[in-house]
Amino acid sequence: MRNKPFNSIEETGRRQLEERLANLIGRRRDEVLRGIGKGTTVCRLPDSTDCTLQSGSMLLEGVHFDLSYSPLHHLGFKLLTSIAGDLYASGGEPFAATIGIAVPNKLSSEMVEQIWQGFDAAAREYSVEISGSELTASHQILVLSSNLTGKVAEADLIVPDHARPGELICVTGDLGAAMAGLRILVREKKLWEESGEDGFSPDLKDFEYVIQRQLAPVARKDLNEAMSSTDLRPGAAIHIKRGLIHEIDLICRGSGTGFELYSPAIPISLETRKVADEMKEDVDRYALYGGEDFEILFTLPENDEEKLRAVFDDFSVIGKVLPESEGMVIQTGEGESIRLDG
Amino acid sequence: MRNKPFNSIEETGRRQLEERLANLIGRRRDEVLRGIGKGTTVCRLPDSTDCTLQSGSMLLEGVHFDLSYSPLHHLGFKLLTSIAGDLYASGGEPFAATIGIAVPNKLSSEMVEQIWQGFDAAAREYSVEISGSELTASHQILVLSSNLTGKVAEADLIVPDHARPGELICVTGDLGAAMAGLRILVREKKLWEESGEDGFSPDLKDFEYVIQRQLAPVARKDLNEAMSSTDLRPGAAIHIKRGLIHEIDLICRGSGTGFELYSPAIPISLETRKVADEMKEDVDRYALYGGEDFEILFTLPENDEEKLRAVFDDFSVIGKVLPESEGMVIQTGEGESIRLDG
Repeated sequence: MRNKPFNSIEETGRRQLEERLANLIGRRRDEVLRGIGKGTTVCRLPDSTDCTLQSGSMLLEGVHFDLSYSPLHHLGFKLLTSIAGDLYASGGEPFAATIGIAVPNKLSSEMVEQIWQGFDAAAREYSVEISGSELTASHQILVLSSNLTGKVAEADLIVPDHARPGELICVTGDLGAAMAGLRILVREKKLWEESGEDGFSPDLKDFEYVIQRQLAPVARKDLNEAMSSTDLRPGAAIHIKRGLIHEIDLICRGSGTGFELYSPAIPISLETRKVADEMKEDVDRYALYGGEDFEILFTLPENDEEKLRAVFDDFSVIGKVLPESEGMVIQTGEGESIRLDG
Repeated sequence: MRNKPFNSIEETGRRQLEERLANLIGRRRDEVLRGIGKGTTVCRLPDSTDCTLQSGSMLLEGVHFDLSYSPLHHLGFKLLTSIAGDLYASGGEPFAATIGIAVPNKLSSEMVEQIWQGFDAAAREYSVEISGSELTASHQILVLSSNLTGKVAEADLIVPDHARPGELICVTGDLGAAMAGLRILVREKKLWEESGEDGFSPDLKDFEYVIQRQLAPVARKDLNEAMSSTDLRPGAAIHIKRGLIHEIDLICRGSGTGFELYSPAIPISLETRKVADEMKEDVDRYALYGGEDFEILFTLPENDEEKLRAVFDDFSVIGKVLPESEGMVIQTGEGESIRLDG
């Protein structure tokens, strides 16, 4: 490999590299209705009116979790949450999960069982069958992977790239909590390491909510369930995994629209605010850029807000879809306009 | 985790642990026709007569491949081969693949593109669309994962646990070659390390076939293609991934049968034999226990052998399915009977 160009992924940019790879794809198949670069994979067999949905992910020790503060039985739960939400955001219902666990020597069979119990707990939570598994060796780090299959009637499919100007931008629950939880866990780990004490017990009781959001988040199946009893459907929706701004950008670029966000309207829990205060950080950054919120971002025709609120109340209107020409703008509480597109 | 029982996976046994985990599964779904412990996952949507098939796998650097002799553009090809064969052995046709790549810092964007090209080459070979991808960071090792979806008419589904006494046990191609290739690569790597020379060039020209079988194996789609023009169907079939004996055991235990194998009938290439000779090892062990052959093991009613040979010739009859009471036996060329079941 000597004398060849070496550009790190960081230099190239992960998203740019993902786009470049997606453009290299040669073979297309009629069964694939929505493929690479379009969010959750949507397929349909020729004889069927229902679609299958698929999403998969990997968690690597040292990158996505730290065994010094992540209990083993939470890992599989979190992994399934991260992909179940993709299917819920598509209007679908997961039914089958396959699981891969690459186990380093430092883990015992009993520990693998604990990991498995987390997958099983998530499978019960999301009503899916664990339909396949692979157990393999790993030299140093624990690696978990999972792939989730679900279904949706084609008429009920919700996609990220169908937002229309004038629609409200809405979000379930509150944002930034997972990042706040991570901040606390990292701080307590550092204190524990510095204390050198075996009996050190971290003080987490004031932060139970944000820590639970970091370690054992639950996917939002309730939005779908509420809507299914109505004729309401989002214009577009996406699962918030890499941070609000990242996901809004995907929706609006995909839909060929702009947006404005009202930053004071972004829902942030008191506990998340308290963490940001303690850390002397800007809580808006947690909410705008923090990953792993696992809430659902969706757009809704303006007239439907009240109808939705009659059946489902845990959402906030945080902005509006604009024509593409009006760009991407955040309105702050102080009356400032921050442009993200230039 | 102190004072808790610590049994290593080795002590427990990987297969025993997999079985124990499979038995912990709580939730079942009607869409899942064949789930955990039954080989390739088979699902069916309520409105469909066709089934979907799924198989996934992970490759970890240092466990499943070594970057000092595995070219980057072969890794994805090999991974897709390893799971495409599962779908072919089920009588199915893959159509969509999702891919995960966890990239350590030592790899450049250009190297990730080379890996991707291997996936794309396999996608063309197996006529599948790469329908989704995830690029994530890794601290030290390269990890690849993939999940493949395919389809099969329910009437054409072939499963591993439907072998019947009296059927012939057949295998495509030849066995043990991937293990022979690995032996050569490991030896040449050792010589290279010992030489300390920058310009050391390994002598691989006499071993091209076995090295190709190790680094860039191709899944057997030809058996399916040949059979689809006939009314022939295997009784049972399985993709040979963990070694012939492992897979025969799965077929026969699953089917509630025994078997006898004629070891002189097991197809082994001349090059594989030559490697075993050089290594002073028993070539039968390569063929019986060597992993990653990616051939198909199948059973066939006795009368169908000639009919199959008329459309597909690259298979050998290596034994027979017996009633369970007759056990699991290998007949050697020297007239010995080796019992595997007690």
